[in-house]
Amino acid sequence: MNHKFLSISRRTRSTPFSRRVEAAGVKAYTVYNHMLLPTVFDSIEADYWHLCEQVQVWDVSCERQVEITGPDSQRLVQLMTPRDISRAAIGQGIYAPLCDENGRLINDPVVIKLTQDHWWVSIADSDVKLWAMGLASGYGLDVRISEADIWPLAVQGPKAEELVARVFGEDVRGIKFFRSLMLDFRGTEMMVARSGYSKQGGFEIYLNDAALAEPLWDELFRLGQDLQVRAGGPNLIERIESGLLSYGNDVTDAHTPFECGLDAYMDLDADIESLSLPALRAIAGKHENLLVGLRFEQAMEIDNGDVTSGEQIVGTISSHTWSPRHRKHLALAMMKRDYLADNTTVELSGIEGSIVDLPFAFDTQNSVTG
Amino acid sequence: MNHKFLSISRRTRSTPFSRRVEAAGVKAYTVYNHMLLPTVFDSIEADYWHLCEQVQVWDVSCERQVEITGPDSQRLVQLMTPRDISRAAIGQGIYAPLCDENGRLINDPVVIKLTQDHWWVSIADSDVKLWAMGLASGYGLDVRISEADIWPLAVQGPKAEELVARVFGEDVRGIKFFRSLMLDFRGTEMMVARSGYSKQGGFEIYLNDAALAEPLWDELFRLGQDLQVRAGGPNLIERIESGLLSYGNDVTDAHTPFECGLDAYMDLDADIESLSLPALRAIAGKHENLLVGLRFEQAMEIDNGDVTSGEQIVGTISSHTWSPRHRKHLALAMMKRDYLADNTTVELSGIEGSIVDLPFAFDTQNSVTG
Repeated sequence: MNHKFLSISRRTRSTPFSRRVEAAGVKAYTVYNHMLLPTVFDSIEADYWHLCEQVQVWDVSCERQVEITGPDSQRLVQLMTPRDISRAAIGQGIYAPLCDENGRLINDPVVIKLTQDHWWVSIADSDVKLWAMGLASGYGLDVRISEADIWPLAVQGPKAEELVARVFGEDVRGIKFFRSLMLDFRGTEMMVARSGYSKQGGFEIYLNDAALAEPLWDELFRLGQDLQVRAGGPNLIERIESGLLSYGNDVTDAHTPFECGLDAYMDLDADIESLSLPALRAIAGKHENLLVGLRFEQAMEIDNGDVTSGEQIVGTISSHTWSPRHRKHLALAMMKRDYLADNTTVELSGIEGSIVDLPFAFDTQNSVTG
Repeated sequence: MNHKFLSISRRTRSTPFSRRVEAAGVKAYTVYNHMLLPTVFDSIEADYWHLCEQVQVWDVSCERQVEITGPDSQRLVQLMTPRDISRAAIGQGIYAPLCDENGRLINDPVVIKLTQDHWWVSIADSDVKLWAMGLASGYGLDVRISEADIWPLAVQGPKAEELVARVFGEDVRGIKFFRSLMLDFRGTEMMVARSGYSKQGGFEIYLNDAALAEPLWDELFRLGQDLQVRAGGPNLIERIESGLLSYGNDVTDAHTPFECGLDAYMDLDADIESLSLPALRAIAGKHENLLVGLRFEQAMEIDNGDVTSGEQIVGTISSHTWSPRHRKHLALAMMKRDYLADNTTVELSGIEGSIVDLPFAFDTQNSVTG
C-alpha cells in the first residue's frame, strides 16, 4: 500500500473525540463530510478480528445530522426520498435513499423522526444540507435547516450491548434494530440507537453536548476494560464481508437505487409527494447496471476499476478486500445487466471469480476464526 | 507535526493526473470536493521557496466545475450570488461569493461565463451542485446541472507565463487576470485562464479530455526542465502571506461576506434577483466579526482556535504559519468587531501580536530571499 499523509486543517474538521482518538493511537483517517473519520488503529486486519470478537468505540461524528424542523419538515424529507416516511414512529430510524428528479442517488442516509416537526437526516458523504436548503428556498417551505451539534459515537462488536448497558443502563438491551431511546449520561439525555456501520451488532450514541465527549469516551473505556474495548472505525474487511455499501465508493449520484439493489427502500406505489418517484417509476426494471459481489478463491492483486470481457467493459469494481476469515477475495462491482444475464463468472488477471448476490453468503464451516 | 496517513479509496477520488503526481513523489494530500488534492512534495517550506522563485504544476482537479446550461442558467447563477453577473464577458471569471437567504457563505467560487446559457461555477470545498439542483427543482428552472468532466491544472510561479507560452503559444502572454482564451493542445481546444490560488502569477488550464492529462503534464515538464519546473500544490505559507482565504478554514457557512472582507464582491444596490440580497442589505454594517491578520515578531507554538482577552473569547484563529521570508508568524483570525474597535493587539501565550488588515503588508527591505 502506498502511504501518503493527510494534511489536516481546520477544514478537515476535528471532533470532540479527536484528542481521545489521537491518544488511542489512530494511524489513518479519511475525510468524510468535511470531517476526520478514523480508519486504522492497529492494522485493517487486526482491527477486523478485534471488531468481530470484542467491542470497539468509533468516532463517527462525521455522520452529520442534517436537522430539519418546522411545519413543512416532513414534506421536505418526503420530497427527498422515494421511501414512504409517513408511518415512521417517533425515535425510529429509516434507511431512506435520497434521489433527485432523475432518480439518481444523492445520498443514502438513515432518516430519524424525532417528532412530527423535527427530523434528522443522518448522512453519508455529500452535502445534503445544501440540497435541502435549495429545495426549501425554491418550494417556499416553512422549515429550518441546519447541521445539528450532534456527534455520533458508535459502539460496535459482539460485546457492544454489554458495554452500552453498563454505561446507559439495562434499558438498552430492549432497543430493537434501528430504534432508539433517550437515555441519561451524567444528567444529559441523548439518543441511543441500535445501529451502526457493521454487522457485528452495536449501538450509536448521538452525543449532544461536546463537553461530555471525553467523559463518555473515558467511561466506555473504564467500564469496558475487561471486555477488551478498543478504539476502531468502519472496517473495510468487515463491511465488504457484510455487504455494506459505501456511498461515494460503491454507489454514487451516477446510479439509481435499482442499480444499487435498494429496491426494498422505495415505495413506488405510494401516494406521496417525492421528487424522484415519477422518474423511478418510469425506469423501474430498465436499469442498465446492478451492484453484485465477486468472489475469488485466492488473494488478488487488483485495483478498483474496469472489469472487461474480451474488448468490452462489462463492469467496475468499486471496493475489494481479502477476507482472512473466509479465505476468499471479495469485491463489490457495478456490472452490466446484459452481461449478468448470460454469465455467472468474471475473469480478472486470468483468474476466474464467481458473480454472487449481495450480501455475500459463506460456507462458515470452512471459515477461519481469529 | 502529528503525521497520520490518509485512507485512499474510490470515494476520495483520484484524478487523470494522479499517476504523475504519485511519480513526482507526493508526500501528502488533502481531500477537497471528495477528491485528492496534493499538498506537499518536498516540505511545505521547500515547496514554498520553489513556488516563489520558479514554476510549479499543480493538480487542482478538485476545483470542480458545476456546469449549468440552459435558458435559465444565468438566472440560477444570479440567484446564488449577490454579485451582479449581468455584465460578465464571455470567457471571464468572476470571483462571486455564493450566499443563502440569510446571507451566509455557501461557497466562494469563481463563476465563469462560457456563453449566455453556459456557466461554470468553479467551486471551493462544498457541494454547490446539490444546492443548485435544489434551487432549480424548487423554482422550476429550465437548466441542466452537472459536474463537468474538467480537470484544472494550475501552473504557478514567476516562470509560469514562460512555461505556459511554450506549451500553448505566445497568445497566453496577452491574457489578462481572470480572463481566458481557448487554446489548442494536441488538436483539442481547452480554456487557459490567468488565475490560480497563489499570488506568484500563473495560469489554470481547464483540461477537458482525461486522455490528454498525462501528455499535458509531460509536455509541461519536458519544456520546463530548464525553468526548474516541479510538481506542487496550494501552499500554506504562500497563501497566508498573500492573504488568500480558504473556504472551510478561514470562512464557512457561519459567516457573511461582510465578516470575510468580501464587501467588494457584492452589489448591494443592483437590481438583480439574488436570494441573499435582502438579508445582506439588512445586515450591512451590523456584522459582529471581521477576518483580520495577526502578526507576531517571533515563531509561535499555537493551535488554531480561540483568542481570548481576560475571560472573554474575542476571536478565532483559523490558519497560521511562520513566514520564513518575512520572519514573522502570521495568522488569519475572525475577530469580534467590538474588540477591534478598542484594540490593535492580541496576546497569545503571553506574546503580543499586532492586528492588521488583509492582505498583509510587509516591509520587504528586511525580507529573506530563498
